Amino acid sequence: MIQKLIDRIVKTDAPIVVGLDPNLSFVPQGILHRAFEEKGETLEGAAEAIWQFNKGIVDAVSDIVPAVKPQIAMYEQFGIPGLKAFKDTVDYCHEKGLIVIGDVKRGDIGSTSASYAKAHIGRIEVGSKSYAPFDEDFATVNPYLGTDGVKPFVEVCSSEDKGIFVLVKTSNPSSGEFQDRLVDGKPLYELVAEKVCEWGSESMDGDYSNVGCVVGATYPEMGARLRKLMPKTFILVPGYGAQGGTAEDLKNFFNPDGLGAIVNSSRGIIAAYKKDEYKKYGEDGYAEASRAAVLDMKKDIKSVL
Amino acid sequence: MIQKLIDRIVKTDAPIVVGLDPNLSFVPQGILHRAFEEKGETLEGAAEAIWQFNKGIVDAVSDIVPAVKPQIAMYEQFGIPGLKAFKDTVDYCHEKGLIVIGDVKRGDIGSTSASYAKAHIGRIEVGSKSYAPFDEDFATVNPYLGTDGVKPFVEVCSSEDKGIFVLVKTSNPSSGEFQDRLVDGKPLYELVAEKVCEWGSESMDGDYSNVGCVVGATYPEMGARLRKLMPKTFILVPGYGAQGGTAEDLKNFFNPDGLGAIVNSSRGIIAAYKKDEYKKYGEDGYAEASRAAVLDMKKDIKSVL
Repeated sequence: MIQKLIDRIVKTDAPIVVGLDPNLSFVPQGILHRAFEEKGETLEGAAEAIWQFNKGIVDAVSDIVPAVKPQIAMYEQFGIPGLKAFKDTVDYCHEKGLIVIGDVKRGDIGSTSASYAKAHIGRIEVGSKSYAPFDEDFATVNPYLGTDGVKPFVEVCSSEDKGIFVLVKTSNPSSGEFQDRLVDGKPLYELVAEKVCEWGSESMDGDYSNVGCVVGATYPEMGARLRKLMPKTFILVPGYGAQGGTAEDLKNFFNPDGLGAIVNSSRGIIAAYKKDEYKKYGEDGYAEASRAAVLDMKKDIKSVL
Repeated sequence: MIQKLIDRIVKTDAPIVVGLDPNLSFVPQGILHRAFEEKGETLEGAAEAIWQFNKGIVDAVSDIVPAVKPQIAMYEQFGIPGLKAFKDTVDYCHEKGLIVIGDVKRGDIGSTSASYAKAHIGRIEVGSKSYAPFDEDFATVNPYLGTDGVKPFVEVCSSEDKGIFVLVKTSNPSSGEFQDRLVDGKPLYELVAEKVCEWGSESMDGDYSNVGCVVGATYPEMGARLRKLMPKTFILVPGYGAQGGTAEDLKNFFNPDGLGAIVNSSRGIIAAYKKDEYKKYGEDGYAEASRAAVLDMKKDIKSVL
């Protein structure tokens, strides 16, 4: 699956993933009112609003980016209707040819991780039939439980040609509290990185592994070090834009081949129309504003590669 | 909320939580056939089977245990219909007076954790209305992202009178890979434990905090040490029974007041009818077998306290 992602990155010439993290405050009033009129101020109404909002953005950007990354928490907060909007979004993105990275950050003891792996990137058997319940292409995985919490995902990567990104060094301010602590002189995130390479060696797909990692753009020096430590590991890089990461910071995350990283932007793209630079698009032009923000982000990243 | 849990533990005289982790292989053939006949060999059929299975167990044990712990992965693996069965199970357990610990192991950067907290133990605003999407009483939380990944949950604990259990030392074989690594001479899980106490001090409820922790029965010596380090932290203890933890191991997790811990058993209870000791109940008596297994577990734990 990582090779499919790389092929699409090369084709679109954009190492960019659009974070589909819809918040009701991002949804233009027109869409919100129509959804509430149709389904009431209910979880169903909220789910309808974010689904219509997503569709507009996907239509506007699907030819210029390789992938999207819906953050499942933004859907889960609207209960079952929200999760239905998540699934509808995954399916719609597939119809539009996009690769879908489910930002689910799941991880548990072995047998339970196996169920999560089936849910998101695998298949589950029901009697004589089998189903792909959420059917993302990649999922993000939390490593705190160690190898037996991650291995079931790696096995599904190999059997179903899917991928994962394991959290190594996250973009948030307090990520260092545990991740940066020194173990035998090395920060914990480096130990996790070593394990990611070990797990990843079992699911290679061309030059890179189906087992990638997450390293925040907000920690560029650590990114540079991890890039060298994990030459065959694709890095999913959150934290660009709204969280403070700049294009200059991103350079460190790429390999000399110009590959090896894909940069996420969520708010910066999907809520672009709220920013001064894109205000001219207005609420009704929120999707066009997103497209413009993607093109600007592409230019910004290209300027440093 | 922790006081409510303690009150129910005292009332039932059982520091026991039943893990509602239904696997299709646990569901008696009769229930499975009826569900498939009604809804087909579909995700809906699977969800119907586990929901009917759960109802039988909940009816059989709700007067003798304080709480249940549905593991959401076992529902998520059946997609949207599975998650609907999760929600139906939560609601049904509440009707029966049980406290519900959602074993969701969520955790993300701050704003995203806030959405998970709303989804599981809080409320979400939709226009002028507000809803409790999944409405569990407690949720389990992964600490790898540090304070800003956990704080949004703690805030909801205080504002909505709910609780969380933060993973400290998990029950699985490879939990030591990262959790046991020494940082300044102390294992990482102890650093996490210190943070749990710090977070918990902001949401006290009687003698204990609404912020509890998870420590596996499979690591009794670490349990003893953590019990002393965290006197006001309630410990959710998985790993008893099927995973290998014994009653003798459990002693270490309790305070001298006989409180401070609640022990989970999943397979050992819900699939008891498959074990030699309870075979006499037969498939049709699976729920009675569960009740007998709870009573035996209670006796087993009581023998060492």
